[in-house]
Amino acid sequence: MLRTHTCGELTRKDVGKKVKLCGWVDTIREHGKISFIDLRDRYGKMQIVFKGEHGLRNEFVVSVSGEVKNRKPGTENKELHTGEIEVFAEKIEIINEAKVPPIKINENEVAGDDIRMKYRFLDLRRPEMQRNLAFRAKVAQAAREYFIENDFLEIETPLLVKPTPEGARDYIVPSRVNEGKFYALPQSPQLYKQILMIAGFDKYYQFARCLRDEDLRADRQPEHTQMDLEMSFVEQKDILGFVEGLYKHIFKKILGIQLSDFKILTHEEAKKKYGTDKPDLRKDKSNPKEFAFCWVVDFPLFSYNKDEKKWEPEHHIFTSPKKEHIKYLEKEPGKVLGDLFDLVLNGTELGSGSIRINNPELQEKVMKIIGMSKESARKKFGFLLDAYEYGGPVHGGMGLGFDRLVALMLGFNDIREVIAFPKNKAAQNPMDGSPSEVEPIQLKETHIEIVKKNSKPKSSKK
Amino acid sequence: MLRTHTCGELTRKDVGKKVKLCGWVDTIREHGKISFIDLRDRYGKMQIVFKGEHGLRNEFVVSVSGEVKNRKPGTENKELHTGEIEVFAEKIEIINEAKVPPIKINENEVAGDDIRMKYRFLDLRRPEMQRNLAFRAKVAQAAREYFIENDFLEIETPLLVKPTPEGARDYIVPSRVNEGKFYALPQSPQLYKQILMIAGFDKYYQFARCLRDEDLRADRQPEHTQMDLEMSFVEQKDILGFVEGLYKHIFKKILGIQLSDFKILTHEEAKKKYGTDKPDLRKDKSNPKEFAFCWVVDFPLFSYNKDEKKWEPEHHIFTSPKKEHIKYLEKEPGKVLGDLFDLVLNGTELGSGSIRINNPELQEKVMKIIGMSKESARKKFGFLLDAYEYGGPVHGGMGLGFDRLVALMLGFNDIREVIAFPKNKAAQNPMDGSPSEVEPIQLKETHIEIVKKNSKPKSSKK
Repeated sequence: MLRTHTCGELTRKDVGKKVKLCGWVDTIREHGKISFIDLRDRYGKMQIVFKGEHGLRNEFVVSVSGEVKNRKPGTENKELHTGEIEVFAEKIEIINEAKVPPIKINENEVAGDDIRMKYRFLDLRRPEMQRNLAFRAKVAQAAREYFIENDFLEIETPLLVKPTPEGARDYIVPSRVNEGKFYALPQSPQLYKQILMIAGFDKYYQFARCLRDEDLRADRQPEHTQMDLEMSFVEQKDILGFVEGLYKHIFKKILGIQLSDFKILTHEEAKKKYGTDKPDLRKDKSNPKEFAFCWVVDFPLFSYNKDEKKWEPEHHIFTSPKKEHIKYLEKEPGKVLGDLFDLVLNGTELGSGSIRINNPELQEKVMKIIGMSKESARKKFGFLLDAYEYGGPVHGGMGLGFDRLVALMLGFNDIREVIAFPKNKAAQNPMDGSPSEVEPIQLKETHIEIVKKNSKPKSSKK
Repeated sequence: MLRTHTCGELTRKDVGKKVKLCGWVDTIREHGKISFIDLRDRYGKMQIVFKGEHGLRNEFVVSVSGEVKNRKPGTENKELHTGEIEVFAEKIEIINEAKVPPIKINENEVAGDDIRMKYRFLDLRRPEMQRNLAFRAKVAQAAREYFIENDFLEIETPLLVKPTPEGARDYIVPSRVNEGKFYALPQSPQLYKQILMIAGFDKYYQFARCLRDEDLRADRQPEHTQMDLEMSFVEQKDILGFVEGLYKHIFKKILGIQLSDFKILTHEEAKKKYGTDKPDLRKDKSNPKEFAFCWVVDFPLFSYNKDEKKWEPEHHIFTSPKKEHIKYLEKEPGKVLGDLFDLVLNGTELGSGSIRINNPELQEKVMKIIGMSKESARKKFGFLLDAYEYGGPVHGGMGLGFDRLVALMLGFNDIREVIAFPKNKAAQNPMDGSPSEVEPIQLKETHIEIVKKNSKPKSSKK
C-alpha cells in the first residue's frame, strides 16, 4: 500500500505516529509560511500542516508523509472524526496534477444537471455522492442477507433473451454469428423466473438489470435494477409477508427504523378513499423521513381499452385470477379480480407482484379474453407454455424497484442521485457520449444498416 | 404456504405429526394395493405411502396431506436425510399434470447437450443441477462477504455503454430515441471502474455481466460473469494479496479447504519451466479435487505483431509499465515488462489484472508505441483521458471469471454446468429460440434494416 492509513481513521490515539496518507487536496488555507491542507479520500478528511512551498492546487492527488500531532487547544474541529489532530507533513509528493475542476467538490454546492453528468467523475467525488453510493451498497447487502436467510437462491438469468414480437420498447441486439437475427435485452426476468419455478428452484431472487427503450420521465432510466423474486407453493399472503419482512429488515439494519406493519388496502378501497391506487399514507406528506408503506391488493385482472374495444391485462398475461372469480372469466371479465398486488411507499409504487397462472387451460382462457390467438401466444412465449406442460408448481413473486427504494430512503425524488452513471432524459450519457455512431464495419458484421427517417424508402430508388 | 414442511426436512423427531408437502412425483413403486411415491423438491425427497388409486405419473406436481411414521425396521434408507420415516398420505391432490419428460430426472443419467438445452427446465430439475446452482449462489455470497469485510463498495456500472470504434466483438444496440446511434454492451466494466477510481471510490467491486459477440469455444459464452475489482493507492503485491485472501476465504468457507500460499512465477520462469504461461501445478494433473493456484507476473507490456509489423498491448492499453522499465519504452519496447499479472488455477486462467497508467503523459507515450494517434485515442476513450486530467490516483485491479471458478470448484470443464440458461456454440438458446427474427416495426422503430450477406449491394439495384 502507498499509505499507512486512510484520511478518515486517525484520532488522538495515533498522536506521535509516523504516517503516510494518500488523497485529493480538498482545500488549502495559507497562514503566512504555513499551509493547512485538507486531504480527502473516501473515508474522510485529514488536516495536513506544511511549512514551505508546496505548489499544490485543489484536486491534486498527493501522498503525504509526516507525524500525527494534537491540534492546538481551541482549533479542534468537533464535526470531524479526525478533528482533534493534524499531520505535520515532512514530505508531500504529487502523484498527479489536476486541472481546475468545473464542479466544486469541497462544498455542498450542487452544479447543474448537465455539468454534473458530463463531469460525473468529479460529481461523484462530492462527499454526498460518495455517501449515496456507499449507502446503496449497504442496502443491497442487507437485502441479500434477508433473501439468503429465507432460503432464496440467487440465480442469474440471461441478458441476451428472445425478442417478443410486438415487444414494445425492447432493446434489440443484432447477432453477428446468426445473420438477420436478434436478441432482446430483458425488460425484466419474468419469463425466466417462471421457468426457474417450473425447474423446481422453489425460491429465487436476483438483483436484476432491466432495460427498456422508452420515452424517459424524471424517475425513469433506460436501465434500472430490481430486486426480483419468485416463490413456489405460496399464496398471496406468503409473498406479502416475506416482502414486508424484507423491508423491515432493511430499514432496521440500515436506518435503525422499526417499520410498523404494512396496511393492506384493496384496489377498490384505495381508489374510493384516496382517489389513487398509490396512496401516500404519511401523516405529513412533505416529510421525506416518514416511511408509510402499504399494500394495494385485489386489482382487476383486466382493464378495458375503449379505443381498441378490447380487454387488456392490468399487469401481465400470467397473472392468476382469484379462484372465486374464475367463474366470471368468460361472461364478465371486468368483474374478475386478480391475485395481483402493488407495494407502495409514500405514494410511490415500489413494485408489482402476482400469483401466476400455472395451469395451461386457464392460461388459454385468459388469452382468449384479451384476444390473443394461440399462434400469437406460441410465437411470443411458446417455450414457457411448453414448460408448463411438464408440471408447473403454484407460484408467484414480485419485481421491486431498487434504485427508487434507495433514493426514497435517502430522501431523493431523482433516482440519478443513487446511480453511478445514469443517462439523461434523452437516454444519453454526456460523460461517455453514448449512444454514438458506430463504424460501417460494425454494421456490416452485424448484418444491418441504418435507415434515416427522412431518407427515401428503398422501393422508390429505382 | 401450501405446505407445512419441505420434502427434505422431516426426520424421526417429526413422527406423529400431521404434515402437508408439495413437490414433484419422482418415482412410483407399486406393491400390490400400496404405492410408494417419492416426492421431490429442491430440499430433498420424501417417501409417501398411499393406499388406493392415485392416477399419478412421474413429474406430476402434487400436494400430499398425511402423517409422519417410522419406516419398518430394515426398510430405512440411510443415504437419505428423510430415510428413516415416511408419510402415510390421507389425501393427494394433483396441482398439475405433466407430459412424459424427454429427460430422466430421477436418475444420474445425463441426456445429450441439445436436449438438455432445449428442455432446460427439466434438466435443471436434476438434483445435480440443483446442487450446482445452489453452490454457485453460495460462492457468490462468500465472495461478497470478503469484499465487504475489506471495505470494497459494490457499484453497478452501465450495461448500455459507448461503442468503441474498432471495438471488435462488441454487441451493439440501436437506440430508438437517438436515430442512427448505438450503445454497446460492455465486454467488461474496464473504463468505468477506472473512472470510479478517479472519482475517489478507493475500492470497488461488482459481479459484472460481460458480453462479447465472439466465435464460441467450449468454455466461452456470449455472456459471462466476472468478479470485477479495482483498488486505489496500491502496488501489485497489494492486489495479489487481497485476491489470494479472497480465494482462500471462498475455498475455506465453501469447501472447507485451506489453500496454501499461491506460488508466484514470472512470465519468463513459467514459459521456461512449464512451456506455458498457464501452468498446471497439480501433483496429479487429472485430479479435479486438487486446487493449485499460482500467479504469473511480469508479463511483457507489448507483443510484436509480425504480420502488421507493429507493437500491440499484451493486455490493454491502460496497463502500466514497471517503473524501472519506463526508460526502455521508446527504444526497446520489447524489453518493457508491465505491472501485469494473471491468476491461474490448475492450468486455467481465472483472470488478468494490472496496475493502470494514471499519468496522461505516460499514457501518450504508450499509445505512440502501438501506433495509436491522439485522434483515434480520443475517439475511443477520450472521456477517460479527460478524466485523468483532473487527478487520477495510482490504481489497479482485476477481472476474475466467476462461471469458470465455480465450474472448477465442482470439477467441471464446461461452464454451462453452472449457468442456468447458457447458449450453445452457435450463440443460440434452444429453449427460448433466441436469437430470432424481429418484426419489421421493431426494425423501423430502431432505424435499421437487415442486409443479407448474399443480397446485392444497394448501388447495383438501380
